[in-house]
Amino acid sequence: MANKITLGRYMWGRIHQIGCTSIFGVPGEFNLQFLDSIFLTAGLSWVGNQNELNAAYAADGYARVKGVPGCLVTTHGVGELSALNGVAGSMAEHVPVVHVTPDHQLYNKASVPLRFAAAELWDGETAPGKIDRVIRECVFRSGPVYIFLPLDLSAEMVDAELLDTPIDVRPKIDEEKQEEAAEAIRRRIPGALEEVKKADLVITLGYLPADTNSGGFSRKLNETTIIRIDPHDAIVKGKTYPDIAMKPLLSALLEALPEKPQHAISKPHLPAPRVPSDAHKTNLTQSYIWSHTSTYLSPGGILLGEIGTSNFGIYDIAFPPDTQYEAQIYYGSIGWATAATFGADIAHRELLSTPKKAQGRTILLTGDGSLALTIQEIGSMAKHQSACAVFVLNNAGYTVERMIWRARQAYNDVVPTSYAHLLPLYNHPDAAHAYRRVATKAEFAAVLSLPQVTSPQCVQLVELVVDSLDSSWRLGAQLAVRGEEAREYLREEGFRDVFGNWGLSEEAMGGTGVSWK
Amino acid sequence: MANKITLGRYMWGRIHQIGCTSIFGVPGEFNLQFLDSIFLTAGLSWVGNQNELNAAYAADGYARVKGVPGCLVTTHGVGELSALNGVAGSMAEHVPVVHVTPDHQLYNKASVPLRFAAAELWDGETAPGKIDRVIRECVFRSGPVYIFLPLDLSAEMVDAELLDTPIDVRPKIDEEKQEEAAEAIRRRIPGALEEVKKADLVITLGYLPADTNSGGFSRKLNETTIIRIDPHDAIVKGKTYPDIAMKPLLSALLEALPEKPQHAISKPHLPAPRVPSDAHKTNLTQSYIWSHTSTYLSPGGILLGEIGTSNFGIYDIAFPPDTQYEAQIYYGSIGWATAATFGADIAHRELLSTPKKAQGRTILLTGDGSLALTIQEIGSMAKHQSACAVFVLNNAGYTVERMIWRARQAYNDVVPTSYAHLLPLYNHPDAAHAYRRVATKAEFAAVLSLPQVTSPQCVQLVELVVDSLDSSWRLGAQLAVRGEEAREYLREEGFRDVFGNWGLSEEAMGGTGVSWK
Repeated sequence: MANKITLGRYMWGRIHQIGCTSIFGVPGEFNLQFLDSIFLTAGLSWVGNQNELNAAYAADGYARVKGVPGCLVTTHGVGELSALNGVAGSMAEHVPVVHVTPDHQLYNKASVPLRFAAAELWDGETAPGKIDRVIRECVFRSGPVYIFLPLDLSAEMVDAELLDTPIDVRPKIDEEKQEEAAEAIRRRIPGALEEVKKADLVITLGYLPADTNSGGFSRKLNETTIIRIDPHDAIVKGKTYPDIAMKPLLSALLEALPEKPQHAISKPHLPAPRVPSDAHKTNLTQSYIWSHTSTYLSPGGILLGEIGTSNFGIYDIAFPPDTQYEAQIYYGSIGWATAATFGADIAHRELLSTPKKAQGRTILLTGDGSLALTIQEIGSMAKHQSACAVFVLNNAGYTVERMIWRARQAYNDVVPTSYAHLLPLYNHPDAAHAYRRVATKAEFAAVLSLPQVTSPQCVQLVELVVDSLDSSWRLGAQLAVRGEEAREYLREEGFRDVFGNWGLSEEAMGGTGVSWK
Repeated sequence: MANKITLGRYMWGRIHQIGCTSIFGVPGEFNLQFLDSIFLTAGLSWVGNQNELNAAYAADGYARVKGVPGCLVTTHGVGELSALNGVAGSMAEHVPVVHVTPDHQLYNKASVPLRFAAAELWDGETAPGKIDRVIRECVFRSGPVYIFLPLDLSAEMVDAELLDTPIDVRPKIDEEKQEEAAEAIRRRIPGALEEVKKADLVITLGYLPADTNSGGFSRKLNETTIIRIDPHDAIVKGKTYPDIAMKPLLSALLEALPEKPQHAISKPHLPAPRVPSDAHKTNLTQSYIWSHTSTYLSPGGILLGEIGTSNFGIYDIAFPPDTQYEAQIYYGSIGWATAATFGADIAHRELLSTPKKAQGRTILLTGDGSLALTIQEIGSMAKHQSACAVFVLNNAGYTVERMIWRARQAYNDVVPTSYAHLLPLYNHPDAAHAYRRVATKAEFAAVLSLPQVTSPQCVQLVELVVDSLDSSWRLGAQLAVRGEEAREYLREEGFRDVFGNWGLSEEAMGGTGVSWK
């Protein structure tokens, strides 16, 4: 008789095989039994989260850092729906995540547009095949999948030896179509130098245009000059090549191209670093923060930026080598970054024990408005002794929104928060030293000059207090490009002075036609 | 030319007309413009929340207390999906809530099974009619509806005088069918005394059976002896009477029935209060908490119970007159009660200024496991100087789940939390006095004997520290009724002693067949 294991163990075995070793989620009456199988699967750990939305964000952050699917477990209905916005973000940004939950026919319909595949398991015979199929889809299509595992079925016995054959996660591609695509791309490339001079050849790799990564959709490109290489197809001169996959196509392309470049492209001239005119002021400003943060970073680090104010300032930080930067730039759900940092740091810790990644810290840059949504995940960091650093920009509300509409309207204020109490609330082992409040440039410099702690015991929190109307120049430029009405608004609400601090001329605003005279 | 107002103001005017005067939600780039109209509508206030799930819970709590629809505003996509689990709870429990959000065709599909109606607004001409229709559905069907209001449309001008005709929210009923139903019910009732003796006539009013309100579905009733009166139909002897509505039917029934009861039913004999055998112990236990909490309550109060441990203990509290009790007993999403309490207290405050309800406090009874999910809403309470009292049972994890499966498994532990820091974190004006930690019966008695504060300045927090395996007898009985396996588990995991403290015999467990010998 064949060696048997429970279906629960089979599923966790499969998830472990694809490299996912930490499981996020929230326990519930209808998933407790298959949570137990996690503890029986060697190499797999239960991590857990403070709520389901945070669990989905954490699994997303984990996947981004480790390069393997993240996994979360919730109960059906209440847990499934609470996690939905996190899963939708993974869908929009192509982050592979496996969401395991019991089934409830009504609520599983809600996730239909937010997943690539779902395994509805109803019997032990077909369940292993269905599990394998969705895990394959998760890796291959790089996005969320669901496994609906009824409680009683998790104890069903299945053949253990099924695990001996790994899931084939290689993309199934049409070799002939791939050849055609590679050839079409190659034909367009030898004239690259001339093309670039005329700015009429652009190759995009998996490009998802959003207002936040395209200058507010201001980048006008002639579609016929673009070669689009997307995860599962390519478009060259308007012709689509389907049934291919990005990675094998790029390999084929490398082989098809000449070994050495046929031309030399001169190094682009970067503009000189901006010298803010508020340099003489003592209070902390964003003009100081973003140009000085890099001294705190070390090679091999992982940086997560919240989609609020932080995400616009971060691009002025000079990154040390081998820095990984993650932001939910396309879907843009504020609150994501805090919980994703927890997941990212769990993944980072796992990678630190491999030769691949031997150094660096996980660092979160967020704001008070965003942190409020998922603040309890700081508790998970404390419980799991996450060695990450959290920088929170305290500007008394939603400054991005102040810059868009009614800067002083009450709805842009958030709940005033005394961050000194956050780490003690969650029993941080060294809360007094792990928290710093910074309101002046000198205090910020002092924090940055602290001896680098290569292996801190637990999460660190740095509160950066700035004025509620202080901003980065990039955010201003991003909004100014929307038109004269937006620029008029920014001037009227007093942001002009902020940009004045940056010495922003039309040219300095990136040629957006913005003038602050 | 007719007097014109913006569509935004029209919508808020309508929402105000049905009695909803506080708006919950989270601002976002795509809803800021129509949030402004809130400030322009006399009598309407923006409240705001720390995240969207909490906003949905708060609107739900508000609606339950005030008896009018609650309202929340989110941005589309990220905000819409984050709120979804809260809206699903309102759907399951028939709580009227209006969710206003901009539109995004992909994500609005996710809420289709979780709403009674949706107004997708695309032009100023048809928009007022669509808004009226869904608000009517919200009130009439008592559940969630959506208004998808594109940003640019909110500034469209519509006739102001449309607001002069109130929305007719009276149910549209078939008078003839109602007469038939009332007559059929009346015919069954004159023999009530005999019927009750034989326990073969049961009238249910809007009954939603769940494991939590039916003794784990242990109540076996003969369907043919039940008269079911539901919100929109009635069933008598298996025959359904559709197209009617509960309230007018009950009015019609009252008229049809004889003015005085035709019989006398003797007052039921309640069992004597249980005397726990752990009365001599000094540490705080649930046997003490639930039997002593009533001294803290005053008439006219509002009590919210989380669906965890608290919800089983609360039934042992003797309520003062005119106490309103709310729990999400059917949908059971933990975390609901904290945010719903914020909304309930906003509603309570509004009612306190009316003759209808002139006294009492809003009180939350929750646990550490549930509070963690939505803890940031304590911040909203502090910001808005909510005068509610929060009792949090700190039993180091999910005790309900410990009682179901693997009492000591790690996934049932939550992040250890030092509640002394919670009110200071949110800048509570008098945090030192507003927080009390209670670990002994004497300390609990001391808190309960404090002079009643009729108008406290801000939220109060009482932490009740009990053992992680301590429980209420009702929760034990609820689980024991599941069968011998469940009872065996409870005995083995050590819960036997807990129930021993209550002197629980088979009879005391409610005749569930449970014996603890």
